[in-house]
Amino acid sequence: MPLPARMRLAEPAGALRIEASFNVAALGPGASDPRVQAAIVRMRGGITRQTGLMVSSQPAAATAAATLRIFVAAPDHPAPQRLGDSEHYMLNVTAGQATLIADAPLGALRGLNTFLQLIELSNAGFTVPAVLIDDAPRFPWRGLSLDCSRHFIPLGAIRRTLDGMALVKLNVFHWHLSDDQGFRVESKRFPRLQQMGSDGLYYKQTEIRDLIEYAYSLGIRVVPEFDMPGHTTSWFAGYPELASAPGPYSIERKFGIFKPAMDPAKEDTYRFLGEFLEEMTDLFPDEYFHVGGDEVEPDQWKANTRIHAFMKEHGIDGEPLLQAYFSKRVQELVARHGKHMVGWDEALQPGIPKTILIQSWRGPQSLADAARQGYEGILSAGYYLDLMQPASQHYLVDPIQGETAALPGPEQKRILGGEAAMWEELATPENLDAKLWPRLAAIAERFWSPASAKDIASMYDRLAFTSRWLEFHGLRHRESLRLMRERLVAGGDLSAHDAHDSIEALDRFAEVLEPIKEYTRNEDGEKYTQSTPLNRLVDSISPESDTAREFRALVERYLEKRSNSAVTSEALTRLEAELSAWHANLQKVRPLFGRNALLSDCNSVADRLETILQAGLEAIQALRAGRRWDASETSARLARLDQAYAPQSELLIQIQPGVRRLMTAAGN
Amino acid sequence: MPLPARMRLAEPAGALRIEASFNVAALGPGASDPRVQAAIVRMRGGITRQTGLMVSSQPAAATAAATLRIFVAAPDHPAPQRLGDSEHYMLNVTAGQATLIADAPLGALRGLNTFLQLIELSNAGFTVPAVLIDDAPRFPWRGLSLDCSRHFIPLGAIRRTLDGMALVKLNVFHWHLSDDQGFRVESKRFPRLQQMGSDGLYYKQTEIRDLIEYAYSLGIRVVPEFDMPGHTTSWFAGYPELASAPGPYSIERKFGIFKPAMDPAKEDTYRFLGEFLEEMTDLFPDEYFHVGGDEVEPDQWKANTRIHAFMKEHGIDGEPLLQAYFSKRVQELVARHGKHMVGWDEALQPGIPKTILIQSWRGPQSLADAARQGYEGILSAGYYLDLMQPASQHYLVDPIQGETAALPGPEQKRILGGEAAMWEELATPENLDAKLWPRLAAIAERFWSPASAKDIASMYDRLAFTSRWLEFHGLRHRESLRLMRERLVAGGDLSAHDAHDSIEALDRFAEVLEPIKEYTRNEDGEKYTQSTPLNRLVDSISPESDTAREFRALVERYLEKRSNSAVTSEALTRLEAELSAWHANLQKVRPLFGRNALLSDCNSVADRLETILQAGLEAIQALRAGRRWDASETSARLARLDQAYAPQSELLIQIQPGVRRLMTAAGN
Repeated sequence: MPLPARMRLAEPAGALRIEASFNVAALGPGASDPRVQAAIVRMRGGITRQTGLMVSSQPAAATAAATLRIFVAAPDHPAPQRLGDSEHYMLNVTAGQATLIADAPLGALRGLNTFLQLIELSNAGFTVPAVLIDDAPRFPWRGLSLDCSRHFIPLGAIRRTLDGMALVKLNVFHWHLSDDQGFRVESKRFPRLQQMGSDGLYYKQTEIRDLIEYAYSLGIRVVPEFDMPGHTTSWFAGYPELASAPGPYSIERKFGIFKPAMDPAKEDTYRFLGEFLEEMTDLFPDEYFHVGGDEVEPDQWKANTRIHAFMKEHGIDGEPLLQAYFSKRVQELVARHGKHMVGWDEALQPGIPKTILIQSWRGPQSLADAARQGYEGILSAGYYLDLMQPASQHYLVDPIQGETAALPGPEQKRILGGEAAMWEELATPENLDAKLWPRLAAIAERFWSPASAKDIASMYDRLAFTSRWLEFHGLRHRESLRLMRERLVAGGDLSAHDAHDSIEALDRFAEVLEPIKEYTRNEDGEKYTQSTPLNRLVDSISPESDTAREFRALVERYLEKRSNSAVTSEALTRLEAELSAWHANLQKVRPLFGRNALLSDCNSVADRLETILQAGLEAIQALRAGRRWDASETSARLARLDQAYAPQSELLIQIQPGVRRLMTAAGN
Repeated sequence: MPLPARMRLAEPAGALRIEASFNVAALGPGASDPRVQAAIVRMRGGITRQTGLMVSSQPAAATAAATLRIFVAAPDHPAPQRLGDSEHYMLNVTAGQATLIADAPLGALRGLNTFLQLIELSNAGFTVPAVLIDDAPRFPWRGLSLDCSRHFIPLGAIRRTLDGMALVKLNVFHWHLSDDQGFRVESKRFPRLQQMGSDGLYYKQTEIRDLIEYAYSLGIRVVPEFDMPGHTTSWFAGYPELASAPGPYSIERKFGIFKPAMDPAKEDTYRFLGEFLEEMTDLFPDEYFHVGGDEVEPDQWKANTRIHAFMKEHGIDGEPLLQAYFSKRVQELVARHGKHMVGWDEALQPGIPKTILIQSWRGPQSLADAARQGYEGILSAGYYLDLMQPASQHYLVDPIQGETAALPGPEQKRILGGEAAMWEELATPENLDAKLWPRLAAIAERFWSPASAKDIASMYDRLAFTSRWLEFHGLRHRESLRLMRERLVAGGDLSAHDAHDSIEALDRFAEVLEPIKEYTRNEDGEKYTQSTPLNRLVDSISPESDTAREFRALVERYLEKRSNSAVTSEALTRLEAELSAWHANLQKVRPLFGRNALLSDCNSVADRLETILQAGLEAIQALRAGRRWDASETSARLARLDQAYAPQSELLIQIQPGVRRLMTAAGN
C-alpha cells in the first residue's frame, strides 16, 4: 500500500530470502545522492525493526553479490525537491537477487519502501516474493496538511508523521503554522509574533531547518502556511497594529471562525508582510508558499471607516474584492522571492496571476472552475481526517471526479493531486497518530495508485497490514490509545491482576464505539477550548471501529446467503456469540465507570449498548425460529433501536447499523 | 517507588487537585540552576503525559498562588555532578498547595519525580494526596551498567533508559563502551579503534557530549568503562600491536571469555593508553573512570617469551601479579587526569592506591575484603538483569548483607551502593526496555529506600503501578514485546480479524512462560553470535511472568486456608478456571506454530504445557473429591510433572511450580 501502478508476480513463484547477511550495492550516476545513501541506512534499520534480524551495515563486497542492487540512472538537481521530480522506479525480485532501478534519487527512495513492505514471514523464514514492479505516482502532489496552531505538535511527533508519510509515499508536508490560536514559528525580524502569540510553544528556526532537511532526506517537500488575512488573532497579540480593529489582542482560546483580520487598507501591513515573507521564504526553501486566505469575516472591515474610505478611493466594491486586493498584494510579495503562492479556494479572485495554486476545501466544482481559468489546484475536500470518517469514505474521493473528471485533458492536468488535512482542535500530540493512521494510508493510495484501485475490501485488508507495518516503524496509533485507555481504568485500589482485567473489559466495550462525526463534538464552538482536557473515552478510541465494520460485514454475508440453511445457522450462531460476549462484558465494565471522573458519563453509553445488544439477540432468535414480526412491531422495535443510536458522551455505538439490518430482516 | 525514607499521610486526609491551570514557582538560591528549570519543564510535560491535561507552560503569577512551590536552598558547584551531592528533599502536599524544599538542585529533581508519581485519578479527577515526605537516598551510588558493545544500543534507547533511571532515582549511568565484540566510541587520536572495531556502530564525540549533558540535566552521572587488559579484541582489529600475541585481529563475533589481552610488558602499550586516556578523561567529565580489569585469560602472556623475560626482569611472579602491575600503571595514567579509577574485583591487587573504587561482580565477600583494606566499593553481584531472574530475587540482595553487614561502621561506610548490570549478548535495542524494566525499578528501590523495605508483596504491587507509570513516560517494555509477538503470528493469509485472535492466543500461551535462567541459553558459548537473530518467542516475553507468580500466590492462599471448606471450594474453582482457560487456548495457539519459521519449535512447549495443565486439573479434582493419592502414585505423577518442566526452546513453563504444590497437596 499504495498499490503499485503495475505489478506481476513471477512464474514460477519464488522468493528472495532475507537474512542477517542482507546487503545492498548502489550504483549509477544518482547513487551517491545523500538521500539514497540515507535511505539505504534507513532501510537496513527498517529490516531490523520488521524482522529482528541484525542486518549487516557493511556494503556488499561486489555488486553482483549484493542481495539488493540499486541503480539510479541520473543525479538530481540541488535541493529543494521540486514538484514533478521523477519518482518512477522498477523493482525486480527473483529468488537470487533484487534489483531496483530508478530514474532519479526519489524513485530509489520510493522503491526501497516498497521492498520493505514486501518482506513477509513464512515457514521459509523472512522472504520477499519474486515480483516485477513498475511504479510511478498518479499525482505529483500528495500531501498532508497538519495544523500545529490549535494544539502545538512537538517536533518528535512531526518526525514520526514524516516517517509514516514516506512509508506510504506521500511527498508534501503542508505545515499549518499560524492561526488564531497560536503562532508557531520563531521570527527574528518580528519576535513578538512567537513571544506573545505562542505560549512559548513554537519551532525555532534551527529546528525548522533540521526538520526540512529531514523531510528532504525522506523525499518530502515542506510547504509552510501562514494563514492571512483572517485566522490571525495570534499575530495581533504582539502586533495589534496589523489588525483592522483596535487592540489589544490575545491568543484566541476558543475554536471557530473569528473576526480579527489584517488591515488590507494600510501600507504598513504590506511593509510588515514584505519583511516577514522575506524572512520566511528564506527559511522555507520550497518553491510553493501557502498564505491561506480562507474564512475571512468581513466585520472588522465593515466597521472601519478608514477602510471604507480606502475601498471607495480604490474603487473596491465590497469585502470579497477587498480580499482580492489583499491577495494580489501578498501574491506580489511572495512572487518577489521566486515562489508560487498557494491559497485556499477564496484566494481565487479576479486578477490573481495564473501562477498561484488553489487548495480546495470546497470541493471539485471549485477546483474545476479554477482549472478552467488556468489555475493549478489540489483537492482537500473529502480528505479531512478530523471529521472522524471511515477510511473507505476518503478512499472513494478522487481528485478527478465529477466536475474535474469532465474537464478536457489539458485542464484536467492542472489538478496536481490532493492533500489530507488534519485540524487539531480536538487532537493533541497524545492521540495525533491515531487521528492520522491508518486512515492516511488509504488516502495516500488514492493519490499514488491507479484510479481503478477502488476495491474497498482489498483496501481494508491491506490497510490492516499497513497499520501493523507502520507500528514497526515507530508510529504509535494503537499504542497511544491503549495507554490512554489504561489511564481511564485507574482509580480505586487497583491490583495488577484487576488492572489487566479492567483494561480488557474497557477495550471490549470500546471496540464497538466511534467518536461522533464531522464537527458535532464542538458544534456551538463553546464546549471546547485550547485547554480542555482531551483524555476521555471518546479521545481514546480510533476514529473507525474495525470491529463494528467487520460485524456489519458478517451480517451482510449472512443476509446474502440466507437461503442456505446450513450457512444461516452457523452465521447466526457466530453473530449471537459476538453480541452475547459484548453483553456479558457489560457486567465487567460497568463497575469501572464509578471509579473515576473520566469515565463517569459512560453508564448511559452502556445502557444504550445494552438496548442494542438485546435488540440484536432478539432479532437473531426471531430469524432462527423463522418467526416474522409484523410491521408495527418491527417499526416500534426499530424506533427504540434508533433512539439508542443517538450520540451519548460524544460516542456512537457503531454495531447499531449491523443490528438494524438484522432487525429489518426479522421484520420482512 | 522507590519508597521514601519517611512519609506520612496528612490527617485529616485531603488532596491537591491537578488541573490544566497547574503551575509552578521556583525560588531560593538554587532555583535558577538549569537542571531545576529543565526539570520543571519536564515535569509539566510529564503531567500532560500522565493525565492528558494541557498544563499551562506559564509560570505562576505569584509564588503564593502556585500549585507547586519549589524552594532550593543552595546553588550547586559547576558540572559535573559529584558523588555524594545532596539529594535530600521534603515534599509537603496539602489540599491547597504543594511545597517542595530541597537542600540543593538534585534534591529538587528527585522530589519533582516523587510528586509526579503521586498523581492519581479518582472521582475527584486528578489529585495528589495530602502527604508529608522527608526523603534522601540510603546510598550515594545507585547505578545501571549497560553493555553497548555486544550489541550496539542506539542513543535514542539510551536516552529512554536515562529517563527511566531518573524517574526511579538512579544516579549513575555506567556505560560499558568497549569489549571483544565492539569498540563504541569515536577516538580522534586513534581512529582505527572505531573504524575497524565497531562495524560503523559507535558514538560520535559530539553525541557523547550531548548524552552526558542530557544525563546531567536528569541528575545522572555518566561513568565510562573501557575494559582492559582483557576483553579487548575489538581494539586489536585496528591496533594489533597492543596485543600480547601477533595479529591480525578482527572483531569477535562469538560470546564468552577470549584470550586476546593487552601486552603489559611493552612501554608502547602505556604510551598508547596514556594518550587514549588523556582524550577520554577529557571527553567524560565524571571524577570516576572505569577500566574494567575482569576476566583476563593468561594464555597470551604465558605464550610470549618477551613477556616472560619482562616478568623475570621485574620480579613479577605469575600472571595475577602481572595484571596487578598493569593495573597500577593504568591507575597512574587515570590519576594523572585527576580521576579515581574504578575496576572490577580483579583490579584489587597489592599496591594499588586506596583511591580506586571496586565494583564487585563476585559478591559481598570480595567487597568486604576491599572495604577492610580501605577501598570503597559498590555491589553488582545479585543485580545482573541478564540472568532473567525475578525482581524479588534482586530486591532481596542488599549491598550491606552478610560479610558487609558484619563490617564495623567506618568500613561499612565504604560500601557506596550498587549497580544493576545489563549485559547485551542476548538482548538487542528491540527488547532492551523489557530486559531492564520494570525489574530495574525494584533494584532502584533497594539502593534508595531504607533497608527495612523488604515486603515482596508490597514491592510487586508498587512495581506493577510503576511499570505502567514508566510507559506513560516513554519506556517501551511492554509495547516492544507486544510488537515482537505480533511479528510471530505473521504468515499465511492473515485477515485483520484472524490477526487479532492469533495475537490473543499467543499472548495467552506466552503469559505462563519465562526465558530460561542464568547463562543456560548460551552455555557452550557457541549457539549465539552477534548476528544471531533474537526474534523468537523466548526473546519476546518478559523475564518474569506476572501471571505465573500470581497463579502461584493463588495456590498458596488456597493451601493456607484449606481447612475452611467454603474458601476451598471457591479457590479451587478459580484455579480450575485458569488452568482450563490455558488448556482451551492450546487448541487456538497450536495452528500458529505451523505458520512460520519462528514459532515452529513451539509445539513441544505446548505439549509440555498440556501435560502440566492436565496434571493440575487432575490434582484439583482429587483435592475437591477429598481423594488422596498414595505415595507411589504421587511420586510417579510428580516425576512426569517435573519432566515437563525441563526447558524447551529455551523456555520455562512457570506455572509448573504452582501446579506442583497442588499435586503435592493432593498426595498428602
